[in-house]
Amino acid sequence: MPEHPLTTAVVESWSGAADPRLRDLMAALTRHLHAFVEEVALTPQEWEQGIGFLTATGQMCDDVRQEFILLSDTMGVSMLVDAINNRKGQGGTESTVLGPFYAAGSPELPLGANIAREPGGRPCFLSGHVLAPDGSPIEGARLDVWHSNSEGFYNVQQLDTQPAGNLRGVFHTDAQGRWWFQSIMPSSYPVPEDGTVGNLLRAMGRHAWRPAHVHFIISAPGFQTLTTHLFVNGDQYLDSDAVFGVKDSLIVDFVRHDEPGEIAERGLSEPFFTAEYEFVLERASVAAEREAVAV
Amino acid sequence: MPEHPLTTAVVESWSGAADPRLRDLMAALTRHLHAFVEEVALTPQEWEQGIGFLTATGQMCDDVRQEFILLSDTMGVSMLVDAINNRKGQGGTESTVLGPFYAAGSPELPLGANIAREPGGRPCFLSGHVLAPDGSPIEGARLDVWHSNSEGFYNVQQLDTQPAGNLRGVFHTDAQGRWWFQSIMPSSYPVPEDGTVGNLLRAMGRHAWRPAHVHFIISAPGFQTLTTHLFVNGDQYLDSDAVFGVKDSLIVDFVRHDEPGEIAERGLSEPFFTAEYEFVLERASVAAEREAVAV
Repeated sequence: MPEHPLTTAVVESWSGAADPRLRDLMAALTRHLHAFVEEVALTPQEWEQGIGFLTATGQMCDDVRQEFILLSDTMGVSMLVDAINNRKGQGGTESTVLGPFYAAGSPELPLGANIAREPGGRPCFLSGHVLAPDGSPIEGARLDVWHSNSEGFYNVQQLDTQPAGNLRGVFHTDAQGRWWFQSIMPSSYPVPEDGTVGNLLRAMGRHAWRPAHVHFIISAPGFQTLTTHLFVNGDQYLDSDAVFGVKDSLIVDFVRHDEPGEIAERGLSEPFFTAEYEFVLERASVAAEREAVAV
Repeated sequence: MPEHPLTTAVVESWSGAADPRLRDLMAALTRHLHAFVEEVALTPQEWEQGIGFLTATGQMCDDVRQEFILLSDTMGVSMLVDAINNRKGQGGTESTVLGPFYAAGSPELPLGANIAREPGGRPCFLSGHVLAPDGSPIEGARLDVWHSNSEGFYNVQQLDTQPAGNLRGVFHTDAQGRWWFQSIMPSSYPVPEDGTVGNLLRAMGRHAWRPAHVHFIISAPGFQTLTTHLFVNGDQYLDSDAVFGVKDSLIVDFVRHDEPGEIAERGLSEPFFTAEYEFVLERASVAAEREAVAV
């Protein structure tokens, strides 16, 4: 289908932008948006519904709720931006979405500390290494970790009822690149369903659930910062994550231990889980080179 | 470029929608939105700016301000929807955008009445016919008209300072299909520039002005309702309407009359303008047939 004359006129209207990148972005956005409208022959009623949806989505947003990010997540746009900007050439650990529940300022804790500060949940021990691409350990790598409680809520969602700093912490690897800490098993949970995105998911026959996972942001001088999750193998939502965040390489066996001797050895009175993962950070220079090539 | 696997996954996620039209709309929207992100290799910073822009745009909206419609207008989407849904096959008058300043409930007035209810502005007499496609007159056709005052503001924008019903009126054609009324010359004016769309237009080096025009909604039993403008020939913004609403067939000569005899004849003491236009309404059955074909 040849470009509509109106599309050409709008694209030309952006040509005076001072910033050439902004000009190109708006030209491409215009072409794709117009192509969508033409392809589906959007009716005035549908246009009006779209305007109403976007308006209500903006009006849902406040300091603790970002409905447009949720829309981007559930339409796979956030993961696509992640995929485009984190193409791996070096065998580094894969990235995934940051998610809306990250908060800076988690407590700095010694290796081995327990980040679960309220009763409930099944004990879980996480450990592994942070490595360079050649397999050498990275000492002093910083791991910022956070995850949901046994009811599927993050600390920042329940500041009134969860203890301060619950299920959040910052750790640094030892001289051998090792990291380890104690927590509870994360839970699967639905993304917020009481807004416009919830309405959309219901209309589309989609559920709102994310498979259980633990968030990590891992950084070290000379290496590219990695934002990722570890997903619990066996979770029923691994194949239908509401935000399309799952990558096979990030699915980890959380091994159940119910042998009385093992339980006693950990100082526990109930079965527990363990999970291990070797994170590999790309060298910063590779990221910089890729940036240069992309330009 | 082959479709990204993530795009395929998101499109498949919509497949359970109860409404097949909604399923197709979301599938097409996903494909175009993802193609845009891939084509421009959208960076996380740009994604974040986009989220912020959409959020602020929603938050600008209230009962009397619709910033998303303004965004749609200035990106040419509103006119594209109009173009797609009002393809003419029969020689009917071309349509254009409704605009944000329409309000139902304008005063019903006798033919010839003056809709200008405040001092100021240059007198103007508008007249013409409403015709069927075969040229026969339509008696009793309803014309809902509205336009800006000499400072570029609509009645609904200045309810506190303009008289009630100023520059708004509803007329009905006579037995010969004729319509006529008195007013003042409309003015060019900028669309609201104090919001996110204003920021966008400035960043893109675009002005916010619309050429002077008079709005009409014309309806008659058995005919398709027509929403359009008449534009003032010679206006400096005809080639760069901020909302892409101008069509050549809607540009009309507003003829200046400064001969003392003519002025006296109209009971005036200053030069005046006249403009004439023959509106042609499509028969409703044609519209209905086109709908049927489109389905």
